[in-house]
Amino acid sequence: MSSVDVPVALLGYGTVGAAVHRLLEESADEIERSTGHRLRVARALVRDTAKERGFAAAAGVLTADFATIRDDPSIAVVAEVMGDVEPAGAYVLELLRAGRPVVTANKQLVARHGAELFEAAAAGGVQLRFEASVCAAIPVIKVLRESLVVTNVHRVLGIVNGTTNFILSEMEAGRSYAEALAEAQRLGYAEGDPTDDVEGIDAAAKMAILATVAFGSRVPLEAVSVEGIRGVTSDLVAAARALDMRVKLIGRATLVDQRVDVRVGPAFVDQRHPLAAVDGAFNAVMLQGDAIREITLEGPGAGGIETASAVVADMVAVVGTIGTGFLQSDPVWRTLEPLPAGELPSPYYLRLQVEDRAGVLARIAHELAAAGVSVARLVQQPGDGHAVLHVVTHETPAGQVAAALDAIRGLPESRGEASALPVVSDRGVEELGWA
Amino acid sequence: MSSVDVPVALLGYGTVGAAVHRLLEESADEIERSTGHRLRVARALVRDTAKERGFAAAAGVLTADFATIRDDPSIAVVAEVMGDVEPAGAYVLELLRAGRPVVTANKQLVARHGAELFEAAAAGGVQLRFEASVCAAIPVIKVLRESLVVTNVHRVLGIVNGTTNFILSEMEAGRSYAEALAEAQRLGYAEGDPTDDVEGIDAAAKMAILATVAFGSRVPLEAVSVEGIRGVTSDLVAAARALDMRVKLIGRATLVDQRVDVRVGPAFVDQRHPLAAVDGAFNAVMLQGDAIREITLEGPGAGGIETASAVVADMVAVVGTIGTGFLQSDPVWRTLEPLPAGELPSPYYLRLQVEDRAGVLARIAHELAAAGVSVARLVQQPGDGHAVLHVVTHETPAGQVAAALDAIRGLPESRGEASALPVVSDRGVEELGWA
Repeated sequence: MSSVDVPVALLGYGTVGAAVHRLLEESADEIERSTGHRLRVARALVRDTAKERGFAAAAGVLTADFATIRDDPSIAVVAEVMGDVEPAGAYVLELLRAGRPVVTANKQLVARHGAELFEAAAAGGVQLRFEASVCAAIPVIKVLRESLVVTNVHRVLGIVNGTTNFILSEMEAGRSYAEALAEAQRLGYAEGDPTDDVEGIDAAAKMAILATVAFGSRVPLEAVSVEGIRGVTSDLVAAARALDMRVKLIGRATLVDQRVDVRVGPAFVDQRHPLAAVDGAFNAVMLQGDAIREITLEGPGAGGIETASAVVADMVAVVGTIGTGFLQSDPVWRTLEPLPAGELPSPYYLRLQVEDRAGVLARIAHELAAAGVSVARLVQQPGDGHAVLHVVTHETPAGQVAAALDAIRGLPESRGEASALPVVSDRGVEELGWA
Repeated sequence: MSSVDVPVALLGYGTVGAAVHRLLEESADEIERSTGHRLRVARALVRDTAKERGFAAAAGVLTADFATIRDDPSIAVVAEVMGDVEPAGAYVLELLRAGRPVVTANKQLVARHGAELFEAAAAGGVQLRFEASVCAAIPVIKVLRESLVVTNVHRVLGIVNGTTNFILSEMEAGRSYAEALAEAQRLGYAEGDPTDDVEGIDAAAKMAILATVAFGSRVPLEAVSVEGIRGVTSDLVAAARALDMRVKLIGRATLVDQRVDVRVGPAFVDQRHPLAAVDGAFNAVMLQGDAIREITLEGPGAGGIETASAVVADMVAVVGTIGTGFLQSDPVWRTLEPLPAGELPSPYYLRLQVEDRAGVLARIAHELAAAGVSVARLVQQPGDGHAVLHVVTHETPAGQVAAALDAIRGLPESRGEASALPVVSDRGVEELGWA
């Protein structure tokens, strides 16, 4: 690595790949100042070398032959920006085993095949970096792995899907779910088939990666409990507002007594909590640890140029640290057990439809107390032939809340809905015992 | 650097130094996993080796003889955690020139002597890192230098002093300035002599460092325009609330047409802006750039263990990248001119006391229009024998706002106050042309 000119390669030359190429060219001086090297795209793997491109590559750069990249020992780092798990995954494995450092923006690949990838990186003695696989330009992986190396992060809370955050923000402005989704599609925030976003699947992959890195224990995608936003009604959004909260799709990874819980689902977020202020298509991640209390990072969680910016930063870091062994290891170094779902402690919002007559409130309060659920706040709202009770609880294990809801559903005074959503509250730190 | 055991040294062994030592011991495994090395404190410089310490050092570690650190080539990195510009500055210069990498938590040293320090680092061929000098554990320097290397950051907006943010938060809760300051002192957030905090001096040093790193051009401390919070009245806090804003002490560094403006002063922050949600003693920094739109980092901006966590992360990064030349350069690589103060564009809040009779509003509106100040919002409030006008302007160069205020003060209808504060608004991005 003594030469100034350093050849690099790309797998894929779509929106992100072309943007990576452009940023490397436009910022060559900045990169040379920080690393001593100029990164030059020597090869970019594409299916069709004849296709028109947004940012043209020099003659001979585009290639359809993967072996010209894998077998070129002069290439210092390869950025995988193809998307889809295959064939990207097979290429990345081959590259790592062949001793080529890799940077990937591929969330599903890292979430599903992290173990194999890091095993290959160790075998090849090279780095694998993946900042762009989570929340685009928000440098949450770097901060977790490098800045918070000694802080024992025990909780990650995030709004890690911009599409659903946009939809929920629009619903707060008075739109229905269907209208908000249509608007998100019109603006290009949501796909024609929005399933991955609205069902929480995209967020789950990001949370699996974040939890794995934060806790040093592999969290497989299947271990993430997932609920999307399709069940979020305008009524629920209004109820949140009445309690000075906002409905958000929250990813939450928690380390309790050396056991791990990772979940994605709608939650009520207190207006005073940093995540409540995250509007529209933005993302934010809060990291809570011993030495730092909490650090929150917020920014655009998607976008071609934003993703490319994170890919380039990783390429620069790889080139800047080659030969040192720095961050060459798998972030996973221990095996932690999953926390049984019922044991996860949280404050909750409960929504209960009950008969509207004297004595019902006492009955409900009795059932909650019997299940060990302590009430922090209660609002009774007259409904159409029934009453709706809005309850905010103190921190309670999920299992006790479920038991209380079961008991309440069985009461003769029950009139339909009895449901719960977790509450994310800043005040919780002091007042609710939220740890 | 092939050995696992790597001796390091500390200058200073007070709260931060002892915490650095403790974190290095407690997290030795984590550090070895990320770097391949175990960092062991071999020497810690103190004035009095016999004094009792919170976290005891092994026999022979404490020394009063600086030369034993400077002249020991086995020491891989030295953390300067003494505080005060001297003698810390002289020690750091000697260490760098002798080829010892240095990590410093010393804000005033970096803000005042950055040029000399980086010259010495270049001469010695070693890194100088300074994450802990700005906002403790919030990794804003790392994010600027490493994650945002290709994004051309053109604006840094920050709440970088926790003491004043706490005082202003308390004033919003109904306390007077004096009461809020006393409470901050009681809780240990403010010193007995709070001048450095409440006059904005502490924030100015942080903004000088942030602007220097973000723009690659040296911003001397004297170039930072500073106003503290002593002039913030309860009336002003109430006026902000009525406009859905909050009064915050905002540091702002702006790059306009290759010219630089850096200032610290009270501002009205729109409730929807990410910085509005920063409560109590927390800090936050928003970085706006080409490829990333904006990234906001929030967390505790002070504290012994938080500062130590940042120092350790820097030590780990130095040890992890030794011999690569990575980030060995001065972040300064160009010389940009200052922006004349009158040319800084911003939306403003204007507070005008005027005679309460027909025709006055038209007269004020005329003067504002004549100075080229465009009104976004106006609220008239009846006062004690006069009216108070609260005006929010569209983005306007500071000079035009000053000219308008001068003209209004000269009107026969003027009744006292005519003052302006900048407005920080999220809506500005689209609606106010805030760039």
